[in-house]
Amino acid sequence: MNNIKDRADLIAQAAQKMNKEVYNDSHVKKIITPRHELQRQSSKVVTLEDAIRKTGLKDGMTISFHHHFRGGDKVINLVVDKLAEMGYKDLHLASSSLIDVHEPLIEHIRNGVITKISTSGLRGKLANEISHGLMKEPVVFRSHGSRGYAIKSNELHIDVAFLGASSSDPLGNAAGFSTSENAKSICGSLGYALPDAKYADHTVILTDDLVDYPNQHNAISEADVDYVVVVDSVGDSSKISSGAIRDTKNPRDILLAKQAAKVVMNSGYFENGFSLQTGSGGASLAVTKYLRQGMIDKGIKARFALGGITSHMVKLHQEGLIDRLIDVQSFDKVAAESLMNDPKHKSVSANEYAAMLEPGSATHFLDVVILSALEVDVNFNVNVLVGSDGIIRGAIGGHPDTAADSALSVIVCPLLRGRIPCVVDEVTTLITPGSNVDVVVTEYGIAVNPNRPEIKERLVAAGLNIVDIRDLAEKARKIIGNPAPLPFGDKVVGVVLNRDGSVQDVIMNITD
Amino acid sequence: MNNIKDRADLIAQAAQKMNKEVYNDSHVKKIITPRHELQRQSSKVVTLEDAIRKTGLKDGMTISFHHHFRGGDKVINLVVDKLAEMGYKDLHLASSSLIDVHEPLIEHIRNGVITKISTSGLRGKLANEISHGLMKEPVVFRSHGSRGYAIKSNELHIDVAFLGASSSDPLGNAAGFSTSENAKSICGSLGYALPDAKYADHTVILTDDLVDYPNQHNAISEADVDYVVVVDSVGDSSKISSGAIRDTKNPRDILLAKQAAKVVMNSGYFENGFSLQTGSGGASLAVTKYLRQGMIDKGIKARFALGGITSHMVKLHQEGLIDRLIDVQSFDKVAAESLMNDPKHKSVSANEYAAMLEPGSATHFLDVVILSALEVDVNFNVNVLVGSDGIIRGAIGGHPDTAADSALSVIVCPLLRGRIPCVVDEVTTLITPGSNVDVVVTEYGIAVNPNRPEIKERLVAAGLNIVDIRDLAEKARKIIGNPAPLPFGDKVVGVVLNRDGSVQDVIMNITD
Repeated sequence: MNNIKDRADLIAQAAQKMNKEVYNDSHVKKIITPRHELQRQSSKVVTLEDAIRKTGLKDGMTISFHHHFRGGDKVINLVVDKLAEMGYKDLHLASSSLIDVHEPLIEHIRNGVITKISTSGLRGKLANEISHGLMKEPVVFRSHGSRGYAIKSNELHIDVAFLGASSSDPLGNAAGFSTSENAKSICGSLGYALPDAKYADHTVILTDDLVDYPNQHNAISEADVDYVVVVDSVGDSSKISSGAIRDTKNPRDILLAKQAAKVVMNSGYFENGFSLQTGSGGASLAVTKYLRQGMIDKGIKARFALGGITSHMVKLHQEGLIDRLIDVQSFDKVAAESLMNDPKHKSVSANEYAAMLEPGSATHFLDVVILSALEVDVNFNVNVLVGSDGIIRGAIGGHPDTAADSALSVIVCPLLRGRIPCVVDEVTTLITPGSNVDVVVTEYGIAVNPNRPEIKERLVAAGLNIVDIRDLAEKARKIIGNPAPLPFGDKVVGVVLNRDGSVQDVIMNITD
Repeated sequence: MNNIKDRADLIAQAAQKMNKEVYNDSHVKKIITPRHELQRQSSKVVTLEDAIRKTGLKDGMTISFHHHFRGGDKVINLVVDKLAEMGYKDLHLASSSLIDVHEPLIEHIRNGVITKISTSGLRGKLANEISHGLMKEPVVFRSHGSRGYAIKSNELHIDVAFLGASSSDPLGNAAGFSTSENAKSICGSLGYALPDAKYADHTVILTDDLVDYPNQHNAISEADVDYVVVVDSVGDSSKISSGAIRDTKNPRDILLAKQAAKVVMNSGYFENGFSLQTGSGGASLAVTKYLRQGMIDKGIKARFALGGITSHMVKLHQEGLIDRLIDVQSFDKVAAESLMNDPKHKSVSANEYAAMLEPGSATHFLDVVILSALEVDVNFNVNVLVGSDGIIRGAIGGHPDTAADSALSVIVCPLLRGRIPCVVDEVTTLITPGSNVDVVVTEYGIAVNPNRPEIKERLVAAGLNIVDIRDLAEKARKIIGNPAPLPFGDKVVGVVLNRDGSVQDVIMNITD
């Protein structure tokens, strides 16, 4: 080996055998800039316009977003405004959900910037316009678990993901919170954004707090990020717990929540080590409060709560009543802060949360879920997406995922909302098939799916007011009368996919 | 929509247009087993033999392992014994490293079970035998950053990864520690195992603590895991900080460490917000202790320490002298426990740590690295793999990665080890090219690479004993005399790859 010529020959031979190049030192040049001066810099940090250009985004491609800031989100409007300004057309917008605040999309749809939408939900004026036929293409609705898996399996291919984060370092290590003194926002878990970050062709992080490298326990790794864009605000955290996840003070919701808690406690699934999720909607979120006393009285502790984590869940966790919190979406600021600080409160991706085909998704280990409904029908089918007026005003969320995978799914739903019957003969739109719905709690009694006679037996034994769901529908009809047929047109404005990817229902336009 | 026939037609039309199936409720069947009874069960939990069979492993395929338990590892021998027993032949073993404890592989190589090895290092009898020509195929050596990237880019394709974990739930959410009362082992970061888990065709977790779902802040997600195997022990944690990462009490090492600390403090890179890594080897690890006082005296705090995290680093972090710890490998139990409990101590994958082509890898933000050497030559080339007797006895580790990417690389190396000169005319094997090495600290003076005149100037100004590296080599020669040429044969037993994937050097067999 002391003969340099021999050594070079041997290296060349080895390289040839392995089909590799021989190393050449000439390109090695040490950069001697102090690295701590680079900690706030990186070639990834660019303007939004540059980020868009550099991703190679083209007309007709798919862009994606998350909705963790819910009503406070500022990213979707900002990015789509910019895309419109840059002249983009014919884009497919795939967000984990869309809310009232995304009303400005209406103009972008009219102007042909956005021509396709995939989402879990639609609310407000945007939903109203779409229900009235704003778009040529029907909106594709998926549950949170389905969306994650559709992205993973490339059924929903994302060209560029634009993901808001409350902190990011210049490399793109990004989180839904910031531990810096300049923290401007917090949304907690970035669970719905994780499939996008992982599988999109290009990922752009938008952040309102660019922190020094390295960002603390990031949810999104720099390895998945192409560009980082600093913006004034990614979202107003005070608006996370608004709308469908606002705390209820409605006495009827509280009655429903108390009844639902009794159902859970007497269902046979209220045992040490059980697991729990509460969906959005005041009544379902409030159940946790009323379960708490039962857990204390009976000495029952939960292994985990899943969701959709709320301050109520955090409280029970801190009291030792819930061992771990699994957080795909923080439903309020308290939950988001708990995620930041508590190692037993962990975030999961949409796939780890609720994908049907992911054997380890958390919903497969869920005992009890409490869910809301816009309508339930006599076959226990549930609609959480379209109002009884035929207008889209909700979101699929994790409803069908958790109902299907849990051992016990409890729907809390008033019989009537004002003059609107909520227990009906047939749901306006089928979101969660009745075969996955076990118990429906109304203020006029509790209906149990005939598939689950053992649960009915237990609830009767506990002295709860068990009724036939057809009697509930009949009672609603007696009070309100037969509703007039809805003025549906003949245009399909929405397609609802099942968890398995099949087409489960269509939503028609409203012509009034 | 009230006409059921119409609705079914519309759904069928929508499905056809989207090239999807129409949803069919008939397959939906709720499983009503309480989920908390499933939390210790899963079809993924199988015996090692079943896991091997189910992965479809075949002769000739590549299996992979991590070495986070270092001298205490029990997984590699266990799995390869089982593979031998099952009759497998001609396997390619790709471990993040191999150590003395893996001596039993010798028999498996002789018997044709293992015919190829890729690793970062080799030590002990296994290394000795391989140096003497045990294997037909040369061992392929990569740095930690290169290995991660080779796996990501599929240059190193892994068929089945067998990854030890100190806890896993039945779905495969796995960590290098356990928070359960049954915890048996702890290794901390699983950084080197993360590329394997992510990119291997099949991943098998071996664990000695199967915990209820969900495992707390897991490093490896169930989504990447196919099978979980419960074993008596994955590793002896007390042996992590043995061998090359043992705390030194050697007075010469302490002298070198003190000198190296002075070099760092006077290099121009010792500023608020700087970042630091110390490689394996007693002297380099000990530098942290001596930097501590300088940091306190000058009021300098580090943004992060990288590595290779030791109890010394943890101490400085806890004292507020180092803001964050970035941990690809916990070098002792204290570090592993800190990773478990401290949110500012985070683990990273091998790619997030040191991949050349990963723009966000931590080494790109590294100011100062202190590294050891078996040999340094007059061109500042470093050898950390092959002894001066020509026998493999070390590991590349992150040496070339950190030397190349840091702003300042300092090598601590005695002039002589017993009768062996460590500063030589030409390294026996080229691991880290001299163009990436800035300063060499010996007990006879400090040599500065002529590429870095500004550093030399600063160290001279600080009154340090700066010498010419050729004078150091000359001094060694004077003391020891000219070493006899090594008895190399003509068989290539090892190929050293550069970070860029090219062939940098070959290791020949030893014939004595």
